[in-house]
Amino acid sequence: MTVANPHASLINPPAQCVGIQLAHEAYDILIGPGLLASESSWQDLPRAATAVIVSNETVAPLFLPQLEARLLRHYARVEKVILPDGEAFKTWDSLNHIFDCLLAKACDRKTVLFALGGGVIGDMTGFAAAVYMRGVPFVQVPTTLLAQVDSSVGGKTAINHPLGKNMIGAFYQPQRVIADLDSLDSLPQRELSAGLAEVIKYGPIADAAFLQWIEDNIEALLARDKAALAYAVKRCCEIKAWVVGQDEREQGLRAILNFGHTFGHAIETGMGYGAWLHGEAVGCGMVMASDLSVRLGLMPAEFLPRMRRLIERAGLPVVAPDLGVERYLDLMRVDKKAEAGEIRFVLIDGLGSAVMRAAPDAVVAEVIRSHRA
Amino acid sequence: MTVANPHASLINPPAQCVGIQLAHEAYDILIGPGLLASESSWQDLPRAATAVIVSNETVAPLFLPQLEARLLRHYARVEKVILPDGEAFKTWDSLNHIFDCLLAKACDRKTVLFALGGGVIGDMTGFAAAVYMRGVPFVQVPTTLLAQVDSSVGGKTAINHPLGKNMIGAFYQPQRVIADLDSLDSLPQRELSAGLAEVIKYGPIADAAFLQWIEDNIEALLARDKAALAYAVKRCCEIKAWVVGQDEREQGLRAILNFGHTFGHAIETGMGYGAWLHGEAVGCGMVMASDLSVRLGLMPAEFLPRMRRLIERAGLPVVAPDLGVERYLDLMRVDKKAEAGEIRFVLIDGLGSAVMRAAPDAVVAEVIRSHRA
Repeated sequence: MTVANPHASLINPPAQCVGIQLAHEAYDILIGPGLLASESSWQDLPRAATAVIVSNETVAPLFLPQLEARLLRHYARVEKVILPDGEAFKTWDSLNHIFDCLLAKACDRKTVLFALGGGVIGDMTGFAAAVYMRGVPFVQVPTTLLAQVDSSVGGKTAINHPLGKNMIGAFYQPQRVIADLDSLDSLPQRELSAGLAEVIKYGPIADAAFLQWIEDNIEALLARDKAALAYAVKRCCEIKAWVVGQDEREQGLRAILNFGHTFGHAIETGMGYGAWLHGEAVGCGMVMASDLSVRLGLMPAEFLPRMRRLIERAGLPVVAPDLGVERYLDLMRVDKKAEAGEIRFVLIDGLGSAVMRAAPDAVVAEVIRSHRA
Repeated sequence: MTVANPHASLINPPAQCVGIQLAHEAYDILIGPGLLASESSWQDLPRAATAVIVSNETVAPLFLPQLEARLLRHYARVEKVILPDGEAFKTWDSLNHIFDCLLAKACDRKTVLFALGGGVIGDMTGFAAAVYMRGVPFVQVPTTLLAQVDSSVGGKTAINHPLGKNMIGAFYQPQRVIADLDSLDSLPQRELSAGLAEVIKYGPIADAAFLQWIEDNIEALLARDKAALAYAVKRCCEIKAWVVGQDEREQGLRAILNFGHTFGHAIETGMGYGAWLHGEAVGCGMVMASDLSVRLGLMPAEFLPRMRRLIERAGLPVVAPDLGVERYLDLMRVDKKAEAGEIRFVLIDGLGSAVMRAAPDAVVAEVIRSHRA
């Protein structure tokens, strides 16, 4: 799925490029150390009078001055919107704060938005770009492992609603994704682990050899070895590009990227957004979904301890909060994959292969009971 | 631009069909009396367990029971969301009321939304459909003349922001538009006139003969003659289909549909949403834009009194509120067509032909002074 990159000659040797080719759009994901500092990463972006950097209170002090200086070489005006940090702020109020700024500064429909931060900033900035004046261009500058391997790729943008995660959003593609591995140096260990949950996910759903590679390299990843991180980010983006290229709007195949997310979203919503990091909930959710895969006879029994052990080694929780079985089921019924009230799960039916299917409530209840605190 | 309609045999003889053919989507606009009552109008819509009718407190008592009965033949469950009536409610709060209902009723991503009402209901329902779970199908059932000739066609959806009209939205196409001319029987005269503003618009921008036809038939239209209305709605939809088919996302040509809207939006925002009906503001805005076209030498002097007379005969205001010249200019600088702070106007440069261009502030100021109360 890696396509030829027309800008390849502009990119420093250490940077790698994964091309995303969709039905009507194409864009590049640049991966490597030193990209924020490298002029070549910022060439050939959409021309406009104004760029707007959207970031949060944690990330802005670390990287915003550097990005602003970079963008001032290409845009006459660079505005900034700094939001509070955390999933609890992925709301309409934060989104409206972006709109207020864009309108107060008379930003026109050519204005380019830059999302500088993790998945929350990326999702919100992307959604703001999708609907401000019915669509302006945007660029993802993901600074967390989770955003680099997952949320900045594929065009899913959204905000949360009190009744469900990511319920309001759009499919809207960035002009480019610039994943500077140096930004991971300052990432708290808990956030790094949360990102590893999405890295691990790509193994069981699509690539058994990659699962083995992660097991062999989990310590290097936890120690932020740049070569290991570069390989992991690139491989995840390649797999995601392959999946999204076949099913841009999640009519079918793309749903496999939600392995662990049905249980995970229930944990996040049930605990209150922000109590668990998204990656933590997905990690624990993958343990539960692995168990469900085994209970439904799709995988041999040893798959569950193998997944649980890897998720635990990554520093992620493997015991679910006790929300009560009924509350779990209620929360999962409003999942976007549900149809006519029937919950549908992404399950593993062979290493490197996933399917989506419904499961009897009684079996799901057993899974919930088996893994609760 | 009228394309062959695959469902032609299903439609009652009096109904007409205008096909909209876009790059990646196509849909039909059905126009005629008795469409709400005719089973054939409702065939072959997207299958789903649930339909949701979004309407307002004025329109719902008139047509909702009939539409609900019709939809219950095709959907197991029909939910209703009734919003307050008026442009002042085209807000995030109203939109969120729709989302609350959809989530509380566990509506999945196959749910079909039906917009039953005028332009405000159509814009909001369309935007809700565009972003609920990143997109669900919707059908426009416009019950005002303005919505039938303009706002239900072309896929523009939006809500207002306190700092600008239609600033937050999406391009999102309906599955079908069902324009029942019988619904215009109960329309207040002021709303009928507001709709005529958008009808008149299509003459100067695209069809000199249609402008003449409107001048010859304005009394019949005001008297709600069904044959005259059918012709006017069909001709407007044909012109809009032709324009939108060439420029779905308003990169260029499509902007001509905004003739009168730059001044008009300033009036609407400046007076407070709802004080002037959208069509009233557009009517007065067309007088001002006609004057600007004359002052810039694009049209002969007699064009202005001709347009003013027709707009006046349609029952529309031709004198602008005195917001002050600077306030007008400020409001117009945040117009979506503005670029880098330069206001761009749709101007007539020959009967049936429009261009978009900037104008010197001094000339715009003269226009504002000439038409104020």
